[in-house]
Amino acid sequence: LPAQAVMKAAMQAYVDRTNAGDAQGLLDLFATGAIIEDPVGTAPKRGAEIGAWFSDAVAFGTRIHPVAPIRGSHANQALLVFDVTFRPPGGALTRIRSADVCTFDEAGLITGLKAFWGPEDVEALGDEA
Amino acid sequence: LPAQAVMKAAMQAYVDRTNAGDAQGLLDLFATGAIIEDPVGTAPKRGAEIGAWFSDAVAFGTRIHPVAPIRGSHANQALLVFDVTFRPPGGALTRIRSADVCTFDEAGLITGLKAFWGPEDVEALGDEA
Repeated sequence: LPAQAVMKAAMQAYVDRTNAGDAQGLLDLFATGAIIEDPVGTAPKRGAEIGAWFSDAVAFGTRIHPVAPIRGSHANQALLVFDVTFRPPGGALTRIRSADVCTFDEAGLITGLKAFWGPEDVEALGDEA
Repeated sequence: LPAQAVMKAAMQAYVDRTNAGDAQGLLDLFATGAIIEDPVGTAPKRGAEIGAWFSDAVAFGTRIHPVAPIRGSHANQALLVFDVTFRPPGGALTRIRSADVCTFDEAGLITGLKAFWGPEDVEALGDEA
């Protein structure tokens, strides 16, 4: 199993690289063949879809605001709870109250990411921020 | 799928009944055959093990302190992030930084609970609180 500190550092890097607009840096955190299900209950993203996903995130000015320390586990998973803001093309500044569960390989790369947020966890902030 | 509000109300009831020391009320939130994996990476608890688990939680004065609004999903899962305090027999007041992912049946009963916390998310508070 990867060490707790390795998993938590990777999830903190996920926050930092998102907020720095570093799409390549985000991709570098993921193992080949990784699957992103964001949000849980929608079609998983793989391969080139993940690259496009991060490019969009950067283009939309996505910022992740953690709201509690990252949780580990007694297995190869860790959890980050956060609010995320972004502005889609032509749309309002939007905030989603979300949480990501990541699964890691032995090298500390992310093999799976599941994001927990529902339709009622999304709020349009307009131009207030 | 259960409504977002139904899942979130059940998880809030899980908090409230824990804090009220209501072990039977906690059991009533779970479907027959439910599985608790707390923490993730340890042996799942089923049936009578779950009853004993909640009895211990009440006996240890367990209190759940949510640290963010409950998250839903686009499926039959929701997520609560919290700190939990308890005092095991002869032990110190202890705090764990945790998060629960619950899976629900169509009736809004919990069929699975996975708690995300690692060995480094546990802190002995001693007698300070």
